Amino acid sequence: MKAGHLVFLAVAAGSGIAAVAAAADGDPNARAASPIYGVTIPEGYRQWDLIAPAQEGEPLNELRAVLGNTIAVNAYREGKLPFPDGTILTKLAWKHVQSPEFEPASIPGAATTVQIMVKDTKKYPATGGWGFGRFVDGKPVDAAQHETCFACHEARVKDHDFVFTRFAP
Amino acid sequence: MKAGHLVFLAVAAGSGIAAVAAAADGDPNARAASPIYGVTIPEGYRQWDLIAPAQEGEPLNELRAVLGNTIAVNAYREGKLPFPDGTILTKLAWKHVQSPEFEPASIPGAATTVQIMVKDTKKYPATGGWGFGRFVDGKPVDAAQHETCFACHEARVKDHDFVFTRFAP
Repeated sequence: MKAGHLVFLAVAAGSGIAAVAAAADGDPNARAASPIYGVTIPEGYRQWDLIAPAQEGEPLNELRAVLGNTIAVNAYREGKLPFPDGTILTKLAWKHVQSPEFEPASIPGAATTVQIMVKDTKKYPATGGWGFGRFVDGKPVDAAQHETCFACHEARVKDHDFVFTRFAP
Repeated sequence: MKAGHLVFLAVAAGSGIAAVAAAADGDPNARAASPIYGVTIPEGYRQWDLIAPAQEGEPLNELRAVLGNTIAVNAYREGKLPFPDGTILTKLAWKHVQSPEFEPASIPGAATTVQIMVKDTKKYPATGGWGFGRFVDGKPVDAAQHETCFACHEARVKDHDFVFTRFAP
């Protein structure tokens, strides 16, 4: 990334600000924010620790991996619930394809989505303290899709602070 | 890990020594080395970058994730083949179980094996420069199982420096 195209990312547990894109006006390289929540893809997420892989069946047919920032990983390791402000979880998803080299194995194909959960209890009081972002090719999907995030998490994993993924040892 | 029970792990690309356990005689906390190759489980591997997840069908029925040390990740990102000495890849495997919370999803169950590949061309000239270690509950499996590692990698992925896993973007 060129210096002139910096996306400023504030990850500050103390301030409760988890991920904010302060992009320059009209900067074509600025990372777009999700509708409703204003969540952006965090810098450096691909170097974060693995929380767990998963597989998603039809119709999506994907392999997935959830990565977490340091605040997230520490919370998992300490069994801390709810997750503290500043927690960010990033789920990477790929098409799930047959390995051409080993019959019993299947592996990641093309990347499909990157999905983000950001904990900020001040910013997101109506959705359990979580902001959501779902991105395809780096661009956020529409508001209608984002409206479905919290309803599903609330219905199914309210007792785990609205987070499906557990830490895989 | 207590100071008195240190396992010394040398990760030195320059020396070509990738992972050596210099355990004190009889230390019950020393990490055991694999037969044939003398590979040990590297310190801190659970914090390494994700290379890719995978799924393995019957009879093993597992979800897996390969993590790599910095040398490994840099080689993948630069498309460098063969992998340089000092590369270490760690594959974590878990039983592949149904999510109790979301029908289309399946997730990691109990941990099954941890498998290591260490690149050291001086130490492992007869096996493509790779040493192998397969561990269950932290203990290496027997020599017979380790004898199968290279034959399969050689037969199937010789053109990718004997490594199955590709980097998932």
